[in-house]
Amino acid sequence: MADYKVYEIKQSIFKANDDAADVLRAELRKQHCFLLNLMSSPGSGKTTTLTRTVEKLSGEMNIGIMEADIDSDVDAERISRTGVKKVIQLHTGGMCHLDAYMTEQGLDALAAEAPAQPDLIVLENVGNLVCPAEFDTGAVANAMILSVPEGDDKPLKYPLMFSVSDVVLINKIDALSIFDTFSMDRVRANIAARNPEAEVIPIC
Amino acid sequence: MADYKVYEIKQSIFKANDDAADVLRAELRKQHCFLLNLMSSPGSGKTTTLTRTVEKLSGEMNIGIMEADIDSDVDAERISRTGVKKVIQLHTGGMCHLDAYMTEQGLDALAAEAPAQPDLIVLENVGNLVCPAEFDTGAVANAMILSVPEGDDKPLKYPLMFSVSDVVLINKIDALSIFDTFSMDRVRANIAARNPEAEVIPIC
Repeated sequence: MADYKVYEIKQSIFKANDDAADVLRAELRKQHCFLLNLMSSPGSGKTTTLTRTVEKLSGEMNIGIMEADIDSDVDAERISRTGVKKVIQLHTGGMCHLDAYMTEQGLDALAAEAPAQPDLIVLENVGNLVCPAEFDTGAVANAMILSVPEGDDKPLKYPLMFSVSDVVLINKIDALSIFDTFSMDRVRANIAARNPEAEVIPIC
Repeated sequence: MADYKVYEIKQSIFKANDDAADVLRAELRKQHCFLLNLMSSPGSGKTTTLTRTVEKLSGEMNIGIMEADIDSDVDAERISRTGVKKVIQLHTGGMCHLDAYMTEQGLDALAAEAPAQPDLIVLENVGNLVCPAEFDTGAVANAMILSVPEGDDKPLKYPLMFSVSDVVLINKIDALSIFDTFSMDRVRANIAARNPEAEVIPIC
């Protein structure tokens, strides 16, 4: 019989954030703005994928990009070269994730930059497979990228990230011939075990 | 000229936490309770050091221990074997640090366990050299452990952790003969560059 008790202390913190996220989501819906939260490990290809997406879609819709990093402006600099009008860099100052309050501050900053509300805002979250999955940012949808070199076992090791993601992009599939221990069938099965609703899309 | 602006979004979140930490610290002072926040990387020897400290001091003072981990009860189980009466396990549920609100929840739980207020409470933070340094827990003092196998360059790579620590324990100095690239002089100089006030204490 253990001589100590165990307390789960996360509940109230997450509850406050979840409520703030719901308010933010309702507000964005009223403004007809789709906020997408994009997550992955560092180096999975978030910024490259986003750059190509912006280039394809910027003629069709008004796009805003919020780049979040602990520090450095590398990603905002890359995105700004696509010519997209609304891109800002958010510094989390050591924080390894974004919560709804931080996202709201980012949206306010983006609105100050460019008053016309974008149709689509993409929030590129901090590169990390653990903490960002814990916090609802207020986004309408979550997308994540898993790249082939990271291995097909990641849904087993980081289950929450895969559970909260509506879309999983499998990136760098052109490297499958080199990383031949990565099986597309196995990764699909591993993702489905965590999140049967997730849409899996191979890209490169 | 950069075509994007940079926003620091951490301020308001840290401000709210800092205020909560100050309130908690004042409350503990009134109760003559010393709260120590103990931090380090995973595997540096926090729990072992704490076990020995409790064994030495439990005859002299009333001690309470709060073990914080993302999950698992391994540490509370180890501490409870010292015979200390007040030990609880806090689960952060994925969070890589404790903030003042979480610490307060832990203190409430500890008080519910054992109504007599301890003279000393040690909070063993989540094993991590980044995030725990960002959040004031409300502790009266911060202590950290750097173990010899981790290398003497850590104060350069994780400056904030060393800046906020009042005491730095250099653990596993019996392993200096094996890890001969670790220089006690260099680590002292590296710590002093970040925090000239820090007390450095070699242990094993």
